[in-house]
Amino acid sequence: MSIDDLRGRAADLDAANPIAALRDRFQLPDGIVYLTGNSLGPMPRGAREIARDVVERQWGTDLIRSWNDNDWWDAPVRIGDRIAGLVGAAPGQIVVGDSTSVNLFKVFTAAVRMRPDRRLLVTDAASFPTDLYIAESAADIGGWAVVRTSPPEIPAVLAERGDDVGLVAVSSVDYRTGEAWDITGIVRAAHEAGALASVDLCHSVGAMDLRLDADDVDFAVGCTYKYLNGGPGSPAFVYVAERHLDHFDHALTGWHGHAEPFAMSGHYAASAGIARARVGTPALLSMLTLEAGLDVFEDTAMADVRTASLSLTGLFIDAVTVLLPEIEIVTPVEPARRGSQVSIRHPEAFGIVAALIERGFLGDFREPDIVRLGFGALFLTHVDAVDTAIALRAVLDADEHRDRRHVRATVT
Amino acid sequence: MSIDDLRGRAADLDAANPIAALRDRFQLPDGIVYLTGNSLGPMPRGAREIARDVVERQWGTDLIRSWNDNDWWDAPVRIGDRIAGLVGAAPGQIVVGDSTSVNLFKVFTAAVRMRPDRRLLVTDAASFPTDLYIAESAADIGGWAVVRTSPPEIPAVLAERGDDVGLVAVSSVDYRTGEAWDITGIVRAAHEAGALASVDLCHSVGAMDLRLDADDVDFAVGCTYKYLNGGPGSPAFVYVAERHLDHFDHALTGWHGHAEPFAMSGHYAASAGIARARVGTPALLSMLTLEAGLDVFEDTAMADVRTASLSLTGLFIDAVTVLLPEIEIVTPVEPARRGSQVSIRHPEAFGIVAALIERGFLGDFREPDIVRLGFGALFLTHVDAVDTAIALRAVLDADEHRDRRHVRATVT
Repeated sequence: MSIDDLRGRAADLDAANPIAALRDRFQLPDGIVYLTGNSLGPMPRGAREIARDVVERQWGTDLIRSWNDNDWWDAPVRIGDRIAGLVGAAPGQIVVGDSTSVNLFKVFTAAVRMRPDRRLLVTDAASFPTDLYIAESAADIGGWAVVRTSPPEIPAVLAERGDDVGLVAVSSVDYRTGEAWDITGIVRAAHEAGALASVDLCHSVGAMDLRLDADDVDFAVGCTYKYLNGGPGSPAFVYVAERHLDHFDHALTGWHGHAEPFAMSGHYAASAGIARARVGTPALLSMLTLEAGLDVFEDTAMADVRTASLSLTGLFIDAVTVLLPEIEIVTPVEPARRGSQVSIRHPEAFGIVAALIERGFLGDFREPDIVRLGFGALFLTHVDAVDTAIALRAVLDADEHRDRRHVRATVT
Repeated sequence: MSIDDLRGRAADLDAANPIAALRDRFQLPDGIVYLTGNSLGPMPRGAREIARDVVERQWGTDLIRSWNDNDWWDAPVRIGDRIAGLVGAAPGQIVVGDSTSVNLFKVFTAAVRMRPDRRLLVTDAASFPTDLYIAESAADIGGWAVVRTSPPEIPAVLAERGDDVGLVAVSSVDYRTGEAWDITGIVRAAHEAGALASVDLCHSVGAMDLRLDADDVDFAVGCTYKYLNGGPGSPAFVYVAERHLDHFDHALTGWHGHAEPFAMSGHYAASAGIARARVGTPALLSMLTLEAGLDVFEDTAMADVRTASLSLTGLFIDAVTVLLPEIEIVTPVEPARRGSQVSIRHPEAFGIVAALIERGFLGDFREPDIVRLGFGALFLTHVDAVDTAIALRAVLDADEHRDRRHVRATVT
């Protein structure tokens, strides 16, 4: 297949893409192909108006009355319900607030208490670092140990030590390779061993057609500034399956999670429902602006987003296979086994990323040798995908990746 | 003294107030006297431009590159240093991020680990509820117990059980009564017993002339949306005295606190310095907008803010004494013993607050019988203070406070 063939196919796919119009909902800088939406999603145009309203009217004019009049108090649960609609969860099981790390800590400390007869937390050794750090901290607090394995090995670990395993914690998509794990199977295996299962959705929420309730997931966390396009550091969320809500006794017993926060009682009593996963006053300006990102999803179905995402990554993989046959694609080629990014391995990955950025293709580098390209299906085109492969070919042909000074990477 | 005398004195004090001009830095709704700045400070005019810049330029245009180009990565420590200048702390000891509750959890879990031979956390039974809840959670994790007393009783508790006390945790100002405690003395007493001391600054930072370093405070937390006027839910901060930084091993071991976050190591190693108190990705839009509040303090000294605050609350207390002799003022009359609010007790406190709000005087109610009036010295006038007492007199004279339906209070 020639470059012209690839471009023609891309144009055809763009023309037939049912969610192509959503691209206009974003502000995208001229001359840039933004392949870092899996790190920080671009700005939905609606964010401008929401942020302005929160600052100038809600804060500036309504002031403290906004807690009631502008519904600040209920925002974490209300916005949680909006996210629930994107991850296959019934309302009342997701609350927004805090960072992913803090929400992991809630889940892990609660899970340890829910399985007092167990003592092992099984997780993926290749998890995003913060998941491992928080797992170790929560395990240490509860007198548990962390067992590091890889997701395909989890059934074997459970077969051998299942009686001791209290929690299996995995990510739905590997942040480095882009591989999507079999959440349905992992949750089933955990449950068969009497363990709980938690899933980190950071690299799947807003990109994949998740089914938390149907998959019987016990807990999940996720961030909102990647594929949900919520803005820099927009708050994360935590999902607790309805059947566990009465027993979700996490360690961060802040007053927003109290059954009667305004009674100002000196003794903690957890709220009914998902509100017990609230902690302190949420970062409202960040939280409410996140709604601009969620508004974009109102006009589509997650199944269509997933289809478009797979079409983009699939075409990019095809283009790399044709144009750069020497390059190792780390991400699985099988559609069901990949998220919404494509990672390639190269000893000079850092230099490749730097050279691509100079050409206007913003991807990112992950230690030690990964070029990571995120395909945000709401705003990228198939032509973008082919152009990225063409740019990659040009970078290598012109040796633009050589002798780059390795400076600090950006943030996942 | 007559109403005319009070008003004349107020006008004289306003004319002589060296920080009176700062009022123009805020957007204040017409017809409102805003006495809830101790709950949510009003909007500094500069917030509009900062929020717009963060959304439209930093996020919308610079995108992921903002982590480096707009200094997002270092913002928590950089802004922490700005707050350090307002609380008598040298740079490098404060980091901004997370909520007050989460920061309390960091402090309490770290303190428990720093005093392995102790087992008691002594605190004020009248602390803001979240302080008590988090103290109980951290104590429970460490196998400690919480001893609830009142700040004046702390020396006696230490004399009796000091060998067992690992941490004394108090607020610098009681959120309900507005009483300021003797932090210098409490810290000294804690240290003499071999205990650590932490202070909650929520109701003093930005209003009082704090001296954390000189007072030998070990840890402090505070929020930024009250007297710092940082915006709704703007992130809190934590102070760790320089001498403790190498041993501050809190439980929230998120990747932003790692020594080499971008090495993506699977094993946690705490950063040098105050960055180890970082956890996850901060709510940047909220965090950066907070700087508009800090900018206002660039043009003044905290000693002048404190003087103006005491002048406002002092005049209000005088006016209440003259106009409402039957009313119980809960806040100490002695200047050194009060923060920046005046609380009065009345069996129909809820109705009084509701009636005052209808007259344009926005105070708040605290269970069960407290009318709480915050005097933000950056934006209130002495005439406002006298007018508030006059309005209070009018409410009671006209029985406007009777038969009010008790609805949910707003947020501290």
